[in-house]
Amino acid sequence: MTDPEENESPHSSLASSEVGLVVPRDFVCAQPFTFKSGQTLPGFTLRYETYGSLNATRDNAVLICHALSGDHHCAGAHAADDRKPGWWNNLIGPGKAVDTNRFFVVCANVLGGCVGSSGPSSVNPATGQPYGISFPFVTILDMVRSQKLLLDYLGVASVHAVIGGSMGGMTALLFAIEFPAFTRRVLAMATTSRESAQAIAFNEVGRQAIMQDPDWNHGDYPKGGGPRVGLAIARMMAHITYVSDASMDRKFGRRKKNPANGEAYNFDVQFEVESYLRHQGQAFINRFDANSYLYITRALDQFDLAHAYGSLEAAFAPVQAECLVVGFTSDWLFPPEQNRQIALALLRAGKSASYAELSTDLGHDSFLLESEELYALVRAFLERHESAAVDFSI
Amino acid sequence: MTDPEENESPHSSLASSEVGLVVPRDFVCAQPFTFKSGQTLPGFTLRYETYGSLNATRDNAVLICHALSGDHHCAGAHAADDRKPGWWNNLIGPGKAVDTNRFFVVCANVLGGCVGSSGPSSVNPATGQPYGISFPFVTILDMVRSQKLLLDYLGVASVHAVIGGSMGGMTALLFAIEFPAFTRRVLAMATTSRESAQAIAFNEVGRQAIMQDPDWNHGDYPKGGGPRVGLAIARMMAHITYVSDASMDRKFGRRKKNPANGEAYNFDVQFEVESYLRHQGQAFINRFDANSYLYITRALDQFDLAHAYGSLEAAFAPVQAECLVVGFTSDWLFPPEQNRQIALALLRAGKSASYAELSTDLGHDSFLLESEELYALVRAFLERHESAAVDFSI
Repeated sequence: MTDPEENESPHSSLASSEVGLVVPRDFVCAQPFTFKSGQTLPGFTLRYETYGSLNATRDNAVLICHALSGDHHCAGAHAADDRKPGWWNNLIGPGKAVDTNRFFVVCANVLGGCVGSSGPSSVNPATGQPYGISFPFVTILDMVRSQKLLLDYLGVASVHAVIGGSMGGMTALLFAIEFPAFTRRVLAMATTSRESAQAIAFNEVGRQAIMQDPDWNHGDYPKGGGPRVGLAIARMMAHITYVSDASMDRKFGRRKKNPANGEAYNFDVQFEVESYLRHQGQAFINRFDANSYLYITRALDQFDLAHAYGSLEAAFAPVQAECLVVGFTSDWLFPPEQNRQIALALLRAGKSASYAELSTDLGHDSFLLESEELYALVRAFLERHESAAVDFSI
Repeated sequence: MTDPEENESPHSSLASSEVGLVVPRDFVCAQPFTFKSGQTLPGFTLRYETYGSLNATRDNAVLICHALSGDHHCAGAHAADDRKPGWWNNLIGPGKAVDTNRFFVVCANVLGGCVGSSGPSSVNPATGQPYGISFPFVTILDMVRSQKLLLDYLGVASVHAVIGGSMGGMTALLFAIEFPAFTRRVLAMATTSRESAQAIAFNEVGRQAIMQDPDWNHGDYPKGGGPRVGLAIARMMAHITYVSDASMDRKFGRRKKNPANGEAYNFDVQFEVESYLRHQGQAFINRFDANSYLYITRALDQFDLAHAYGSLEAAFAPVQAECLVVGFTSDWLFPPEQNRQIALALLRAGKSASYAELSTDLGHDSFLLESEELYALVRAFLERHESAAVDFSI
């Protein structure tokens, strides 16, 4: 996903429709955790935020699942003068589509991440050094199971909904499969039940850019150091896949950075889109860990529900949740068809599922952008009674 | 464009329908050459190949223009045991669509290239070292003008046709604009009159991968050295843009390299598509110069006919050639619409132009692949009398 600042709009995080000031917290699980790979940790930490309050029946929680480069800070502000709010602040807040007056919203940085949760940049107590690539291999299943432990810790009896886009959509689907009695609704957007060869290919080029950077040093680098060049390249390339050709043309076209200079006969920045991409790369390396990028892209690539459960229908067999899958017409990373296939498989498995396709020209990251149509869809889905008829509008 | 070996098919380069053994030659122009940038060279070399014979009226030449990573070797073999023929061997040869029994086919490595023509890897006689980025800045116009000098040297009075795909299509179009009386037919495929922001963005990420590689050293590196890691990354990424999601899925899907190993919990090659891409990157660095990659991608990005001539119609005003533009449905780098716009502008400028759109699912590189439909189109276009009616089938 693109950086939240790209989605910034005039607002005050302290206004009445806003979550306001929020404080991240750490869930420190002191129980041993066994990863899907069989590797174990004596415990782990998930950094998380919550907005709204858990009700007396402890069943109004909404779990928000972030994408590759996201984190737990999905709404509100960390300080009154924060320049930007959480990454899904447009969707989450008092009276918003995910209404924090009604719901207890929970969002955690994923296991393997680098924004407070345990991951390769965490210090290994046995060595006093960052784990690097000795950190256990992380899968979407590990993310799901660790987030369930967080919800248990918070006293949540069942979740009203699990919501996510892109990798967050994978997480949400797998949550409903793993914890069917616990999960009443799933809303997965701009996602896939398994990546295409092209999506794997883009991730692999990013990983190679990181791993071939001499500063990667087989994953062994000090905090704040590491393969900054490789990570920036990976991010620049990935960013192109998060947006659409049309949106890049509208935003930048062929505009020159310094038109007065005329034709620039050198390799400095010439086009605005070049400057923008370089900025994206530089901003990312200041907030993201290269090893986490390797881990999480691998988790994305390995996610394959049909392969893991025999077929997509078999994967969805245990699901009890009502499901809504949303595809975006201009998403060429996880195209509408891949989203539609999820909903179709859910229906074939006899589940309550709908598919909505929104016309946007903003690409994969459409799920993050301001859209009254999306807000209305999310609001209606969350407010719908579980017994209500399902619209099989596929 | 992808490597020729990807398009290899069972053949004998010495069979009667083949061009057979060919020998590259060097055109050494001893006259000073002034680039569009205003920079000059005291002379330059173009390495080229020819197939067939120039006729008595010296008007049966067909100029073939290569794409970013192509070269002068577009047909035949350099040795009887060559593993692979020239990159457009399927199209060019005795009795083939570009029939060397009829036409005198000429193809030159572009100025700025690295396969025998003058470029940044050439030795600067003033220093005894490679020019590096002190080589004059190269544009498509410089490629066109230098190739015209080659044709003059070869005694060509006028060209029957100029043919190219991708960058070769840009070259072909500009050739008809710059030398209208000399150019009787233009066949441009999978091309654009100016790149979109997305295409510039991909090129820029490739350039950054090269220029941020410490071994680039501001373009100053010994022959055979240089930013091999950066160049491989650039090539891997670019390769994804040359093919389609569908073709990658058909060729690789999610197949594992070593399925017997089960889930691999590490960052080694796991999927076949990863192995394929790594091979693409490694093969490329053994045959291509990183500075040439910078120069040629910049030439691609700066090519903008509408900007250079005021409008696309104004650009085409001088054209006398019959024009055929071919787009491929699955080409997402230079999509069909960008090809169609070229033909439309030619028609609006009162020119003889047709547009054909071929249904393929092979992506941008469709122009290189075996297609009887494409061969028939090329053959008919080359054999059509100049006075014949034009099919305005847009």
